[in-house]
Amino acid sequence: MTNPVLSVSSRTRRTHFTPRVEACGVKGYTVYNHMLLATVFRSVEEDYEHLKKHVQIWDVSCERQVEITGPDAYRLVQMMTCRDLSKAVHGQCFYAPLVDESGAMINDPIILKLADDRFWLSIADSDVKLWAKGIATGLGLDVSVFEPDVSPLAIQGPKADDLMAEVFGEDIRSVRFFRYAYFDFQGHPFLIARSGWSKQGGFEIYVDRPDLALPLWDAIWEAGQAYNIGPGCPNLIERIEGSLFSYGNDMTDEHNPFECGLDKYVSLSSDADFMGRKALEDIADNGGPTRKLRGLLMEGNSCPPCVDRWPVIVSDAVVGTVSSAAYSPYFEAVVAIAMVDKAHWDVGSKVTVDTPIGIRSATVCDLPFV
Amino acid sequence: MTNPVLSVSSRTRRTHFTPRVEACGVKGYTVYNHMLLATVFRSVEEDYEHLKKHVQIWDVSCERQVEITGPDAYRLVQMMTCRDLSKAVHGQCFYAPLVDESGAMINDPIILKLADDRFWLSIADSDVKLWAKGIATGLGLDVSVFEPDVSPLAIQGPKADDLMAEVFGEDIRSVRFFRYAYFDFQGHPFLIARSGWSKQGGFEIYVDRPDLALPLWDAIWEAGQAYNIGPGCPNLIERIEGSLFSYGNDMTDEHNPFECGLDKYVSLSSDADFMGRKALEDIADNGGPTRKLRGLLMEGNSCPPCVDRWPVIVSDAVVGTVSSAAYSPYFEAVVAIAMVDKAHWDVGSKVTVDTPIGIRSATVCDLPFV
Repeated sequence: MTNPVLSVSSRTRRTHFTPRVEACGVKGYTVYNHMLLATVFRSVEEDYEHLKKHVQIWDVSCERQVEITGPDAYRLVQMMTCRDLSKAVHGQCFYAPLVDESGAMINDPIILKLADDRFWLSIADSDVKLWAKGIATGLGLDVSVFEPDVSPLAIQGPKADDLMAEVFGEDIRSVRFFRYAYFDFQGHPFLIARSGWSKQGGFEIYVDRPDLALPLWDAIWEAGQAYNIGPGCPNLIERIEGSLFSYGNDMTDEHNPFECGLDKYVSLSSDADFMGRKALEDIADNGGPTRKLRGLLMEGNSCPPCVDRWPVIVSDAVVGTVSSAAYSPYFEAVVAIAMVDKAHWDVGSKVTVDTPIGIRSATVCDLPFV
Repeated sequence: MTNPVLSVSSRTRRTHFTPRVEACGVKGYTVYNHMLLATVFRSVEEDYEHLKKHVQIWDVSCERQVEITGPDAYRLVQMMTCRDLSKAVHGQCFYAPLVDESGAMINDPIILKLADDRFWLSIADSDVKLWAKGIATGLGLDVSVFEPDVSPLAIQGPKADDLMAEVFGEDIRSVRFFRYAYFDFQGHPFLIARSGWSKQGGFEIYVDRPDLALPLWDAIWEAGQAYNIGPGCPNLIERIEGSLFSYGNDMTDEHNPFECGLDKYVSLSSDADFMGRKALEDIADNGGPTRKLRGLLMEGNSCPPCVDRWPVIVSDAVVGTVSSAAYSPYFEAVVAIAMVDKAHWDVGSKVTVDTPIGIRSATVCDLPFV
């Protein structure tokens, strides 16, 4: 059977970069925050090899911003995240799990504090705008919550610094990891962060001038020819190897931040006032989580897409579920991310996984793989 | 260029019926409420012809339910919708626009009042669960808001009554439009409504027993052989002809219910306490909406997918946007849904539309087309 195509409509929003993504021969899409996100250009394996050696341009417009501004903006954003926001400063990217009153994960955005009363939440795949607006409405907060027309464009790979320096100037090299600054292109200052959803290094440009989206893409593409630039997108193999967890896949609202290994973003020792505090304190006070995201190294020289969660089994008992898996050319094995019960989460634990192509043996390991 | 495939993952959730949808040779998908929704089996045109003559089985699990239960359930649901909920009774499907404080459309679910303190909102494509939970959290309401494991299965087409009577018994014929009752299959009472996202008649079965999902599909499929049953899904041509508006396409949070022609679901003359009341009263008191969803009959014998909103133009001025369009074999013209400014919304107004295949002339008409 051939793979079904994605039927597009205005509901599955195109981005300002879609014409270039199409011209580059995109072969697969997913829908993320009601918007197109490319998933493969050549093949997932070829995209992976290229990403690790050269530099890629990624249309990640689907990392939508939820802008929260107004006198109560700080209070609202702090209510939503379990990370102490008092440490957030202008110029810093602030990875911050959002949790509800029960401590369940609602999203895991990067928060940019643009001013004391103005924040961008660069979100994963759930309608954080509705969540924030709902809370604000219920509490009668003095904020405005909306989605600005801002489209992140990522430049990822080992040659990203050299390429970006050509387009934006040498100063961009001094931007530290998870920091941002403004750099000029055609007279407009673009917010550019050293960040991105790969472990190969690179930048994310928050494109807030739709009219400059294609000129910017074209300028980077042209300068990138000297660096063997290729079209790209978040790569399944690379992101599993680097253990970049995907909200909706590896983490959902059935999980809390401890289960997702995000302990260092749960600021219980601060006096931050967030809505899931009591629930997360209770978990911490009662021995911590009883399951956790772990790596699995599985036997096999290929791997079907993990479209259902695969049971992790020990002695006929289900002790976890695999949420993401791919064959890794680097490890010459299948790498997987799985939520594993405490009794079996130690490094070296032997388990089996019930995959669509049969039972596979696997070994629990620390994350990230690399 | 071949159409990009949809890359699936556990985030783009499969449904309990996906194995059968795949076995039926699904050719296209979209993602709706983070879940797979088929878009085409044979071709959109063949699916359309078949739907209007026979009967189809549709996996519309993506019409997720948001369940709201508890002492404050009624208050919360009424706050969220501009339709007077005091008229909602057990056994009735209640189409109800959800609006925010500014009167903007958040979703347009069908609300089922299962008990005085228990509701299902059968939603279109936005995270209503987060919206409802956010409001409830902010107000400290005594409710529980969650997504139960309920998967609507639609039986649509002129032969739906005969087929359903064979599977569930003759009594099902007496269920009136937008009413529901419970019917037995393998010992379990299924909530079945006379409803569905086509104008060809039919039913929606709210499948709340995952273990019975495939047995139910198979029983209907087998009984359906006598009725030339086919696999199906919401059909672009048929739904535009019948002017079934699609949230995310034709209606978004940039529109209010008046603009979407939903006046009869805005209960300003009741004393219903909903959050957008003031905003909608202001619009009503100030001459009503200044633009409205209208039909367009456009010249042409084919139509590309409307993936960007197409400008509607009169004398070089943009006076609206097309959000959905398809070639209709019935009208032998392109039928479209467009948001049109007041000055040009009268039936018979002549406009042009800037489509990807050139400027096309069009005439404004009433909805529905048929």
